Parts: sequence; structure tokens; C-alpha cells
Amino acid sequence: MSFAPVPEQLAYLRKGFAEIIREEDLKERLEQYAKTGRPLRVKAGFDPTAPDLHLGHTVLLRKMKHFQDLGHTVIFLIGDMTGLIGDPTGRNTARPPMTRRNTDQNAETYKAQVFKILDPAKTEVRFNSDWLEPLKFEDVIRLCSKYTVARILERDDFAKRLKDGTPISLHELMYPLAQGFDSVQLECDVELGGTDQKFNLLVGRDLQRDSGQPPQIVATTPLLEGTDGVEKMSKSKGNYIGITEPPKVMFRKIMSISDELMWRYWELLTDVPLSGIAERKQREPMAVKMELARHIVADFHSAAEAQQAEDDFNREVRQGAEPADIQTVDFGSPGDLRVPQMLQHIGLAATRSEAERLIKAGAVEIDGARYTSMVFRAAAGTYTIRGGKKWKRVRVS
Amino acid sequence: MSFAPVPEQLAYLRKGFAEIIREEDLKERLEQYAKTGRPLRVKAGFDPTAPDLHLGHTVLLRKMKHFQDLGHTVIFLIGDMTGLIGDPTGRNTARPPMTRRNTDQNAETYKAQVFKILDPAKTEVRFNSDWLEPLKFEDVIRLCSKYTVARILERDDFAKRLKDGTPISLHELMYPLAQGFDSVQLECDVELGGTDQKFNLLVGRDLQRDSGQPPQIVATTPLLEGTDGVEKMSKSKGNYIGITEPPKVMFRKIMSISDELMWRYWELLTDVPLSGIAERKQREPMAVKMELARHIVADFHSAAEAQQAEDDFNREVRQGAEPADIQTVDFGSPGDLRVPQMLQHIGLAATRSEAERLIKAGAVEIDGARYTSMVFRAAAGTYTIRGGKKWKRVRVS
Repeated sequence: MSFAPVPEQLAYLRKGFAEIIREEDLKERLEQYAKTGRPLRVKAGFDPTAPDLHLGHTVLLRKMKHFQDLGHTVIFLIGDMTGLIGDPTGRNTARPPMTRRNTDQNAETYKAQVFKILDPAKTEVRFNSDWLEPLKFEDVIRLCSKYTVARILERDDFAKRLKDGTPISLHELMYPLAQGFDSVQLECDVELGGTDQKFNLLVGRDLQRDSGQPPQIVATTPLLEGTDGVEKMSKSKGNYIGITEPPKVMFRKIMSISDELMWRYWELLTDVPLSGIAERKQREPMAVKMELARHIVADFHSAAEAQQAEDDFNREVRQGAEPADIQTVDFGSPGDLRVPQMLQHIGLAATRSEAERLIKAGAVEIDGARYTSMVFRAAAGTYTIRGGKKWKRVRVS
Repeated sequence: MSFAPVPEQLAYLRKGFAEIIREEDLKERLEQYAKTGRPLRVKAGFDPTAPDLHLGHTVLLRKMKHFQDLGHTVIFLIGDMTGLIGDPTGRNTARPPMTRRNTDQNAETYKAQVFKILDPAKTEVRFNSDWLEPLKFEDVIRLCSKYTVARILERDDFAKRLKDGTPISLHELMYPLAQGFDSVQLECDVELGGTDQKFNLLVGRDLQRDSGQPPQIVATTPLLEGTDGVEKMSKSKGNYIGITEPPKVMFRKIMSISDELMWRYWELLTDVPLSGIAERKQREPMAVKMELARHIVADFHSAAEAQQAEDDFNREVRQGAEPADIQTVDFGSPGDLRVPQMLQHIGLAATRSEAERLIKAGAVEIDGARYTSMVFRAAAGTYTIRGGKKWKRVRVS
């Protein structure tokens, strides 16, 4: 792949980005790479509070992978300086700062997840505390002297908050600079981030120029819509697909998205080039969606598990085991829910004791998995519940 | 004096301040002092680039002295962190930062001058690099988190520059915080500064509150007008009276000010209480102005030299040696001036060789002092020149 012609490489990299600043520069560096064999250094920064990643996070990871596919070095930068400081916005709630130990643990959690997509051999995992922690007052002043207030306040969210009278703490202005300083330290050729990071990524260009480095290319990924097709995928919205969710759940959630959203998922969540996606648009959508679900489940589990999930889906849903239209009922809010009460409330059992009997008999399934505990820790979202031969969907919000 | 009743102390301290925030608080601390005998800690900050001080600078020093008169501890704080950083406004002119050695030398120059007014035994000379230099990135972030951007941008000059589109570098926002941090470190009870420093002094109050200290009292001194009675006293305006100028020059410059300005100088440049000044307003102005000149010359030289300066002034000016109205002629600009050319230009000699003869004969005086060099290093300002029996004033600008 690394010897593909530059225009072809560029097309592969361009797919799925919202914006590239500037594409000509990227082309030029790819040409240099073709000549010299020196891989590009491609950075993306991540929070030190290792989250359970969902597919929304993988849009960026996948673009990192695409650079790796072409032979480049990817820098997975953990912005642990932020974590060491703690969140200082609530001035009186002096939250205990994270320790380096927390951060290291989180880094391990991160690696376990991201190396499902990234190639560990072509990934540098770095911590920005390595160069930010030793900075002294004088260094920070020098760094800050390189940027004007007016320019920092151009950042959309700052401008809005200042206009609305929402407080911005002074230290917040320094994060874009710290992030730009990371690019200088790492001598990045490219920095990737969500569209909401565009301003911060551009600061890196300025600071690199100031340090005599060629300014990095900035490439932003769009925010992925959740399974509802409307809002940004987010755990709190209950419209997410977590990358550690069981194959069966993941498969089912993907099958629940609209045809329109499916094309977006093809673009942002697979390595299939645009030509391949165009070709699939000529085919029967349900089959293409099944292929997408298989694709994604295989990425985070295995091809065998993806096949199993598809078989289960076919048996339960398509062959009538699970009704095609199931009524949705609201119940409870995120947290520990009592399962018998829930079964009674949604009408899968007449009484609590009947519900308990069903559970003990193994006749209750939540999202296709048999459920024998009396308590269910629910996040916000919609769950498909079977109780004996009856089906309901429960919406927890 | 330290056992004078509090209202009397307060009146003594109040004299000459533009504003005290808040006077009730100052009263309360003076009462505590009367009870406990614990002196107040009174800080004023100074640039590390030791200037030749002029009377404008002494307004603040004199207020520091007044606190010392009442038994309090004065902190002469040299803001050397600024100097160590260098002026970063001209981004491409990488000015070499000052070294600690420069700063120490400047501190000695300062002491030689300020101890003409301050009592060394009641003065702590401190350098803010002692606590600012060891701060690390994390500490700086924490410090910056204590203040909002909106609040810092309220500072008049920032607001104006932002509005006018004049660049403000990000690090400039940090100086008020650093200055406030100084007050926390030094546990100041009072901070003094020019009216243009008001905002910065108030930041100290906020940071002290945040650290659980009672907020310092902020007292600002007005800017002193120069001998022209119009513009702020400043070396570059040529309207200054330097505290190391010879007694005769100092005396003569003071005698040249207007009667109106004289009262302001009495208020801001002497320890005479307001009642004493009111009493002098009933007397003959010329005599009162002579007294002022003696007062000030004695402060920076000695009573004997002040008397000598007065005698010289009387002999030369009042008794007709120097004409009362001397014509003023423009000549040259600040720097080394050739004296013969000047004498010829202003009409004190017909030719350059006549001028040279006059100089060699000791018949040339500049500002009352015999001048035998062919070169005169002139700052901007007005000089009284005698050549033989003729007089002219030369304005260098």
C-alpha cells in the first residue's frame, strides 16, 4: 500500500475527513515520503480519563489506522497534564488531582481498546506531562508570549462564552498553547482531531512555524451520529455502540440504524474506499447493512463471532423469534433497576412473584442474553426484553 | 509617632493617596496594630531595570516612608521575574533576557537611591523570582485557574487595546496574577502603587482571599506632574527633577514651577501634614517655594547643601546675576552636543573659536555649574547657559 501512487494514497486518506488544512501540503509530504521513505509523524491527542470507547471515538482511530496502513507513524498522545491538574472549573470543589498511577492505569485500558484498530508496532504512546511537567514559570511565560489574546478568543466556544458572560478561567486559554507545544515537541507532520478541535490544532501550526518547523497538516474528523441518526453518539444519550459490547448487542444495534445513516457508518467506520461504498449503493440495503454489522463486529471481536451474531440475528429477528414491531415502554432511570418490578411494569409478568419465577427459570433475556439476576444496572438507552414468549422494549432515560 | 491616636495616624497616611481600598479596613488594621504591636506589612513593587529615580518616583517611596514612620515594615519588591524573561512584545527581536547578576546590580543602584528616603532597618528588599522561578507548569495553571478572562480584560488598558485591535500577548494577562501571587507569598497587609496599577493591586486582594488571607488594603498614589505642570514627570519629556541632580540644579528647577504646582509638590513630596500646608497658603508664595526647594534638596543631599543652593539662587537670580527673563532657543537633540557650536548658535559667542576661548577661560556655566568640556551630554530638557555676561536658555528636544 505504501507504494501506491500518491493521488491514490491521498484519496484513501481524504475519505472521512471533514477538512484537511491544507491538502496540497499533505500531498507534498506524501511525495517526500515516496522519495525518502521517512514516515510522517501523525498525532492525535486523547483525554487521560480513559473512557469506554464507543464507535464515535473510533472515527479518529480509524483515520490514524489509515495513516499506519500507508506506513506512517502514529502518536497516541495522552494529555495527562490535564488530568494531573484536575478540573479546576468548580473553584470551591478542589477535586483531588489524578496521580500518575491513575493515568498509567488508564493508558493500559486505552491500549487494550485502541489496539483493536491501531497497529501497536506503528504506534508511539506518549504522555504530554513528559515535557509539560518540567516547564517552569519562565518557560510558560515564554510560551504564552507567542500568542495574542484576541487570537485565542477567536475560538468559537471562547467567543461565545465571553459574549454570553459564561466565565472562562484564564488557564483555559493555555490549553490550546500546551497542545500546540506538544506538536512542536513531537515534531508532528499531521495532527488529527474532531472538528471541535480545529482551533487547537491550528495553534500547533503557528507554534511550529515559530520554532522553525514546517507547520503540521491539520485534518479533522466529523462527529459521528448515534444510532438515532440525529444526535452525536454519546453514552449519556443512550444512542451509542460501545466497542466492548457483546457481538450480539453490537450487531443488533447496527441493524437498527436507518439506511441513510448506514452510508455514513460505512464511510466513517470502515476501511472500505469510497468506490466500494458507491458500488454497495446499487445493492439491496438490508444485505449491505448486514455486511456492515458483520464488518464492525469482526473489527472488535472476530470474524467467527460476527458470523454467529448474524446467525442469531437471522434466527431471532428475521425468522420471527423476535417480533418485528415491539412496543416500547419507559421505565426507571439510569442506575440499578429491579428486574421483577420492571417485568411487571411493562406487562411481561402479571405479578412480581411471577416475574421472579420467570427470571429463575432462565426465561428472561435482555438484549438477547439470558438474564438471571434480580438487579440490572442500566445506562440510558433502549433494551429489548423477552419474558417467556412475550417481548417489550424498555427505554431508560 | 507610633503611639499617636489612630485617627491621627490615618490622616497622616491618607495624605497624598489618590484612593484607599478600603479606608475602614486600614483603620481596623491600625487599631489591631495599636493593640498587638504587630507592624503591618506594606509592599510596593518596582521594575528590575533600575532607573535614575526622579521626584515622580519618590511620591510612592514617601508614602512607604510614612508607613515606616508609624513603625510598619515596608517591602521593596523588585519584580525581577519580568526582567529575567525580557520584554517579549517584539516577537522577532529576541532581546537577551536579563541575568540575575544584572538584577542584583540594579538592586544595589536602587538601594543607593531609595534609602535616601526609606529607613533600611524597616525595609525588606525582596525579589519575586524567589517564589516565581520555582513554579512549574502545574502551579502556573493552578494560579491562572483562579481568575477569569473577562475579569482580567476589565483592566482599562487591556479593554482599550482589545477594542482597538492592538495585540495583547497571552502572557501579559499573567502579570497581574503573578503580582497578586507576590502579595500572597509576602502576606501583605497593604500594597501601594500608582493609580495605573490599581487593577493589579486589586488582583492581590482576590488571590489572598482565595488563599484564606485577609485581603490587602490597596492604596494608590497619583502621578506627579513634571516641572511644566502639565505632563506626567518623565525623563523623556524633559520635565523631570532627578534625585541625583546637583543641589543647585534641583533647587533652580523647583523654583521654576508654578505656585499652583507648588502646593501639589508640598503634598506629594514632603512629610508636612495637610494642616501645615494649609497654614503655608497664608504666606508669601515665593518664600514658601524657597522653603519647598530647601526641603527637597535637603532630602536628597543635606541641609547645608540646601542652604548653599538657596544662597546661590539668591545671589544669581534674585540679586540680578542671572536675568529674570532669559530667551529660550532650540538646539540639537538629546545626546552629545558640541558646546562651541551651541554657544555660537544661541548667540553667546560670535564664532566657534571665541566660544572655545570662553570655555577654556571658565566663563561658561550650564545650569549654574562651570563647564569646561567641549562636549555636553544632554538629555531632553531646558538648560540655562551663561557665556561671559550673557545668558540664554537652550531647549534640547
